[in-house]
Amino acid sequence: MSLVAVGTVAIDAIETPFGKVDKISGGSGHYIAWTASNFTKEVKVVAVVGGDFPMEEIAQLKERGVDFEGLQIKENEKSFFWAGKYHMDMNSRDTLVTDLNVLAEFDPILPQSYKSPDFVLLGNLTPAVQQRLLDQLENKPKLIALDTMNYWIQDPQFRPALDKVLTQIDVLIINDEEARMLGNHHSVVKCARKILAEMGPKFVIVKKGEHGALLFHKDHIFFAPALPLEEVFDPTGAGDTFAGGFMGYLDMTQDVSFENMKRAIIYGSAMASFCVEKFGPKRLMELSIPEIKQRVQDFIDLVQFDIEVKN
Amino acid sequence: MSLVAVGTVAIDAIETPFGKVDKISGGSGHYIAWTASNFTKEVKVVAVVGGDFPMEEIAQLKERGVDFEGLQIKENEKSFFWAGKYHMDMNSRDTLVTDLNVLAEFDPILPQSYKSPDFVLLGNLTPAVQQRLLDQLENKPKLIALDTMNYWIQDPQFRPALDKVLTQIDVLIINDEEARMLGNHHSVVKCARKILAEMGPKFVIVKKGEHGALLFHKDHIFFAPALPLEEVFDPTGAGDTFAGGFMGYLDMTQDVSFENMKRAIIYGSAMASFCVEKFGPKRLMELSIPEIKQRVQDFIDLVQFDIEVKN
Repeated sequence: MSLVAVGTVAIDAIETPFGKVDKISGGSGHYIAWTASNFTKEVKVVAVVGGDFPMEEIAQLKERGVDFEGLQIKENEKSFFWAGKYHMDMNSRDTLVTDLNVLAEFDPILPQSYKSPDFVLLGNLTPAVQQRLLDQLENKPKLIALDTMNYWIQDPQFRPALDKVLTQIDVLIINDEEARMLGNHHSVVKCARKILAEMGPKFVIVKKGEHGALLFHKDHIFFAPALPLEEVFDPTGAGDTFAGGFMGYLDMTQDVSFENMKRAIIYGSAMASFCVEKFGPKRLMELSIPEIKQRVQDFIDLVQFDIEVKN
Repeated sequence: MSLVAVGTVAIDAIETPFGKVDKISGGSGHYIAWTASNFTKEVKVVAVVGGDFPMEEIAQLKERGVDFEGLQIKENEKSFFWAGKYHMDMNSRDTLVTDLNVLAEFDPILPQSYKSPDFVLLGNLTPAVQQRLLDQLENKPKLIALDTMNYWIQDPQFRPALDKVLTQIDVLIINDEEARMLGNHHSVVKCARKILAEMGPKFVIVKKGEHGALLFHKDHIFFAPALPLEEVFDPTGAGDTFAGGFMGYLDMTQDVSFENMKRAIIYGSAMASFCVEKFGPKRLMELSIPEIKQRVQDFIDLVQFDIEVKN
């Protein structure tokens, strides 16, 4: 088993109605590493950081078995920096600052040991960086998943590259707003079906934040709820955590059937429900396996019912 | 088995992005009767209409076994009239006209045969009318459910009567916005728990439209999704249809356990998913039992997954 994940490893500043933090570790690659390493011991990260990133957190991840041979460290430069502010309903946020820093020139070079993974997760980065990673693979992985965002969907400068990379992946993971942009229709269901029919991915996962997630494949739809929480403390990284849990579970089980993807989505949702409980990745950093098992059981209890339809 | 339902029987004018209808039958009592009569043959309606209501629809409902002894017909007056307009996302609507007409002086008088039902559904009306119905019951029903709305929650003229009637019911059925108003907090989960702890109901159902419904009871939460539809044609009456399916199923099964309420919510959600497919109650009027069974199976397929958590 092995999961290669490319993403950002960043410094974030976060403000929510419950508090504020000026400097905390973050980035899609960071959340994916913390999450997926609960499931598979073969997480291989491709990313770039500056000298300002707290390297003791990388050391902690290495202790969990995460492979950072693909991490480029630019000692004299600054890490990617993102600052955002959430409002009371937590479904909308304002991006206050995006400083690309080391990310501006990022070329994801794969070490030899990364070139034949079972699973690949392309975290949200420019389509060109995602493509560059795919171009270095020496064997076709069991499954490639990709996350993307509004910038690359809407900007005609990036869209052709995104369209091209979409034809080479298996699972597209996006939120409902991004699905509407990509499918160019207000109905998320229509957009997901259009993406499946015309754009390349064989599976589309639409994340709806506190309203759960939908998995589309052929004519099938699976719905996973989000856990109803009294408070969402900080949603930063929840989407990356979901993706990390989903792909970590798939790599652990080595099973890419639709039935197993349902399970992977429940595990991803469970992990995301932890992520939002504290600032940044803090809750993920203290998480135990029994807690994860209990949370998955909570999801089972939340949606399980027993109806036998008789004809 | 028997279900007494009080509600409106009304004329609606509806505009959606897909079309417009100037005059169509509607009202909570009408939707409840069409829906619940698929499950139980003892639906007893308490309502008032004017001479303008299409009585052939009442005749159709009578053929299905619905009892209208409690329907007051004011030949020379006009029925309650509601006009509304929906926007593209279908989650928000503008009420354009509300003419109370016959509803202004409505006194829900229970025929003797209505006074000892197994189940009571208090559709959305003034808390005083809901209270008046409860005061005429001669035996304690197995279960009383109540729907209400923003007017009665927010207006200090009505709120004390609402608070009083809430102490006498078992199940409160409201939408997420109403839950937030009643619980006075942005978190729906906190509000539902506050209602359970302080206001009287032993079960709270929070309807979230296209995002499904939550059932709260003691420390338990059950979540039922809405069916992901390509298009919602007209959401009018979906909430009443949900309540009618929920209560009709409970009356049919005569089982008020939490496990059976989960099933009832799935049946209610299935019925609501039909309601939104055509204008007003049209889809409900042509519905067959095999279609309902297939739709419930669709809900099972939508959320079913198979995870065994090992310790």
